[in-house]
Amino acid sequence: MNNTKLNDFNEIITGRRSIRMYDPTVKISKEEMTEILSEATLAPSSLNLQPWRFVVIDSEEGKAKLAPLAKFNQNQVKTSSAVIAVFADMNSIDYADEIYSQAVELGLMPAEVKDRQLAGIKGMYEGVTDEMKKDVNLIDAGLVSMQLMLVARAHGYDTNPIGGYEKEQTAEAFGLDAKRYTPVMLISIGKAAEEGYKSVRLPIETIAEWK
Amino acid sequence: MNNTKLNDFNEIITGRRSIRMYDPTVKISKEEMTEILSEATLAPSSLNLQPWRFVVIDSEEGKAKLAPLAKFNQNQVKTSSAVIAVFADMNSIDYADEIYSQAVELGLMPAEVKDRQLAGIKGMYEGVTDEMKKDVNLIDAGLVSMQLMLVARAHGYDTNPIGGYEKEQTAEAFGLDAKRYTPVMLISIGKAAEEGYKSVRLPIETIAEWK
Repeated sequence: MNNTKLNDFNEIITGRRSIRMYDPTVKISKEEMTEILSEATLAPSSLNLQPWRFVVIDSEEGKAKLAPLAKFNQNQVKTSSAVIAVFADMNSIDYADEIYSQAVELGLMPAEVKDRQLAGIKGMYEGVTDEMKKDVNLIDAGLVSMQLMLVARAHGYDTNPIGGYEKEQTAEAFGLDAKRYTPVMLISIGKAAEEGYKSVRLPIETIAEWK
Repeated sequence: MNNTKLNDFNEIITGRRSIRMYDPTVKISKEEMTEILSEATLAPSSLNLQPWRFVVIDSEEGKAKLAPLAKFNQNQVKTSSAVIAVFADMNSIDYADEIYSQAVELGLMPAEVKDRQLAGIKGMYEGVTDEMKKDVNLIDAGLVSMQLMLVARAHGYDTNPIGGYEKEQTAEAFGLDAKRYTPVMLISIGKAAEEGYKSVRLPIETIAEWK
């Protein structure tokens, strides 16, 4: 991580707030954003299919297109360095060969393990409904989104995960078929220009039990 | 974080591997597990409804009940300190009053903001289908699961996220109505007794575009 500003895990997770107002003069270079995405996508995914896809909206044109589709989040769209639209690819299985072959090439997996695992994955996928696929994809997209928000803080930025926007229309506005690319969330990212609010959490005894 | 063993963010995210074999003599106390869950649930969620629920399976009886429902993951069930079954509560809205009132009590939110936001949330929820609720819940459950896996590393443990198990049966076996509590994943946690495998990721140019 060349651009790490903060490497204190405790500070990264306890200091994270949803930030809605950013310094509009701060841009994130394509190089650094690529680094951020590379670190975020170290997250695990089901069968390592990595269904996450990102549209990094950082141009004036892109933001102008997005603004009316995220009406309640105008400050984030206007002042952030970028809004990252996260999608989940319903055809992620199409990349299985590439992923598993690459693992063999890099010496991370014996070829016979690849062949066995690919056959297993493809066989399994035939019996999987669209709903099951979407469910798994959304969980995986959640995993990568969390890591992305934490990595952003390591780079000195803050974020706001946004669920309230026109999901299907956003896919279409950026040239993605919403049937294939399930919209997940928007994540605004930039240099914080406010402190954000602390928020409460339910006590562990309400949400967990030991068995 | 009283029990932090590793606070190096870069090391936490780049060193994470799926670990399937643990030191079976290492237990995680209820106190430390509560700390781990408290830190994990600093993750954000849609409308701060925190739909995540956890069953921490760490007793012999609990593991014996789980083992036949996670057939392909026997090593994790047997050798881990615990397997955490993650669920998403389809009735998370029932906790909205508690969450928002607590925010007012702690001085984090003015009472009139609470009243306005709660009215908005409840109004919105009336128009939300079960499918939309489940989608949001799964994303939120993904967020918390990722943070949980990273927090585990900060505590000196490793994890394996497991999607291949009998989801509905697991809910029922532990006394949860699977219609209300959507099964998300199992996360085994414990002291690593193997190095785990490095795995490959798709290049950023395959999964991201700038607009």
